[in-house]
Amino acid sequence: MLGNFSYKNATKLYFGDDSLKYLYEELPKYGPNVQLIYGGGSIKRSGLYDEIVKILKDCGKNIVEDGGVMPNPTTDKLYEGVRIARDHHSDLLLAVGGGSCCDYAKAVSVSVHCDEDPWDKYYLRFEEPTCEIVPVGCILTMAGTGSEMNAGAVITNHEQKLKIGHVFGEDVMPKFSILNPRYTMTLPKKQMVAGIYDIFNHICEQYFSGEDDNTSDYLAEALMKSVIKSSLTAVEDPEDYEARSNIMWAATWALNTLIAKGKSGDWMVHMIGQAAGAYTDATHGMTLSAVSLPYYRHIMPYGLKKFVRFAEEVWNVSPDGKSDEQIAGEGLEAMKDWMKKIGVAMRLSEIGATEDMIDGITEATIILDGGYKVLTKDEIKQIVRESM
Amino acid sequence: MLGNFSYKNATKLYFGDDSLKYLYEELPKYGPNVQLIYGGGSIKRSGLYDEIVKILKDCGKNIVEDGGVMPNPTTDKLYEGVRIARDHHSDLLLAVGGGSCCDYAKAVSVSVHCDEDPWDKYYLRFEEPTCEIVPVGCILTMAGTGSEMNAGAVITNHEQKLKIGHVFGEDVMPKFSILNPRYTMTLPKKQMVAGIYDIFNHICEQYFSGEDDNTSDYLAEALMKSVIKSSLTAVEDPEDYEARSNIMWAATWALNTLIAKGKSGDWMVHMIGQAAGAYTDATHGMTLSAVSLPYYRHIMPYGLKKFVRFAEEVWNVSPDGKSDEQIAGEGLEAMKDWMKKIGVAMRLSEIGATEDMIDGITEATIILDGGYKVLTKDEIKQIVRESM
Repeated sequence: MLGNFSYKNATKLYFGDDSLKYLYEELPKYGPNVQLIYGGGSIKRSGLYDEIVKILKDCGKNIVEDGGVMPNPTTDKLYEGVRIARDHHSDLLLAVGGGSCCDYAKAVSVSVHCDEDPWDKYYLRFEEPTCEIVPVGCILTMAGTGSEMNAGAVITNHEQKLKIGHVFGEDVMPKFSILNPRYTMTLPKKQMVAGIYDIFNHICEQYFSGEDDNTSDYLAEALMKSVIKSSLTAVEDPEDYEARSNIMWAATWALNTLIAKGKSGDWMVHMIGQAAGAYTDATHGMTLSAVSLPYYRHIMPYGLKKFVRFAEEVWNVSPDGKSDEQIAGEGLEAMKDWMKKIGVAMRLSEIGATEDMIDGITEATIILDGGYKVLTKDEIKQIVRESM
Repeated sequence: MLGNFSYKNATKLYFGDDSLKYLYEELPKYGPNVQLIYGGGSIKRSGLYDEIVKILKDCGKNIVEDGGVMPNPTTDKLYEGVRIARDHHSDLLLAVGGGSCCDYAKAVSVSVHCDEDPWDKYYLRFEEPTCEIVPVGCILTMAGTGSEMNAGAVITNHEQKLKIGHVFGEDVMPKFSILNPRYTMTLPKKQMVAGIYDIFNHICEQYFSGEDDNTSDYLAEALMKSVIKSSLTAVEDPEDYEARSNIMWAATWALNTLIAKGKSGDWMVHMIGQAAGAYTDATHGMTLSAVSLPYYRHIMPYGLKKFVRFAEEVWNVSPDGKSDEQIAGEGLEAMKDWMKKIGVAMRLSEIGATEDMIDGITEATIILDGGYKVLTKDEIKQIVRESM
């Protein structure tokens, strides 16, 4: 059921290996002070930092440094970014990096002119910004989160052991994003693979809800098939530009609200994965892969029809002479084979989780509805244990 | 090959059977004079006209009447619309109808402040607007053209026997569009079916170019499959709201530039169909269906690999023990069966074309490259003859 919804997504995307030059077109639209947001310094080693600084200077901008964004941006870093933006009257937040940098930039963008504590307002009370929003632009160096064309921003509070994502309204979306598949090639393979699984799981979380087959289900399957095909090429040859292009483009459309239309969405793999992430600080995509199969095996009986479709349409499982349970099961086995082939984490113990964290991860998991079954805490504990 | 491109599509869409109420949110953003554009008066019979007039009055707008937009809007009507807009200082062009009304509104929008002849500038010389563009909003009553979320506008010049589409830049896209599937139910079945084929052909025109399989190919297949499934439901029961919803939503995404990324595009079915349309004034979708199969049979050998994929992925043709030619041929046969099932025109003679028009239609066909074969005039003549 497509139902009632609105859609607007005004982010301007520049895609391809010549896309950085369009920064010259975008920068003149904003004031003089550009807060340059980046992570641990890989963009300095790759030379991208220097290229961007040159363009900023060519455009007469004042550069406000804001490096050191960590893979799971924290509340402490958020408060620091807000202070920097206030002190320097930042007119544009230019995030250079992966989803963490983009998410962080959006979280800063709604907090600079906010007179309440942003963690409390946006992440604990899930309120919308009522203040002016500082514009955000992104230069993406990792494909995965879709943050470059959506209004989501995940922030981790270590003190409270909470990692929470808020999907804001359309005004919080980046004004522009530069997507150069070549930048994603400088990433270690493990990061590439984590990103690929993140993309795939974003699609699954939206796909595995509802029993009808509306246009969004078909589009979701299309994106999954494109990601599966390109990922198998990319793990063999990470320098395959075309494969990296398709992964990057699919990532953007996997989580920019299009395939969510008419779907309630599940998001429990993200909820459990994020809880595990708050404990282990492991890479986001790997926390998702580690809990996925136990989760899907658990909910399969409640959404059997969709798991059958998933097996047939996405994994080409032949239905001949098989029960629905068999078909659906073979679909998950095919998915497992693919996960192993690309090399994602198959268990939480591989990424730093220990048995004594089971209770804590269970407790920290936010329970959402929207999927085929609203889980109890006991069921989550069972899934977390099976994921160890 | 995805290649280099930019993407921005900022049209705000309101979808669903409650979507008209959002006109109250949109209207206050524009000045007082609203040019109300519509067709032959079906919206007066359905009551939609009165509903819209009430909202316009509630919002304190001056209504500038501009009805009588014909199925293939003409240059004469365009000049009239421009005069109306100039005389009444229209601040918003509100199109209520199908693709013709939306196309017409966009053509007017770039012509009101243009001091050259818009037909010459935009349709013969394919120039971009350099003047102020009057904003456009759409309330869609027919699914098909995708005009509600793109910058295309097809205009027919009867004197010159030319029907030409110009795809403008992103600034010409509607600011908002209201998509209520229920409005499409008041259409005669023939119009619904013509719209469905128009959607399907938009996807084909983009799909049948290139030999790789990038993300756009997967998305195109997804939209085709959704349209095929929903069309079969809708021809049985035109009141099936869910089927009409999926058709309407797929139509929007079939031609809003997304699935064109990385594709050169063919568009020759549209070129031949539009030439036939200029001679017969037949419904756009029916001119496309009438020439499609002769065209695709003709180019199949030049893009065989893609026609094989089309057969297997879209029509579930089993490849076992068959040559590529057989598989591809069976795909076109399956497409033909579907076309007959939904009831589109299979020949130009069904929609008013006569043998003596063959030369003229051939002559009026604009030859584009981008597909698997750049046609000669002789080949076009052959295809037109086979379509009779």
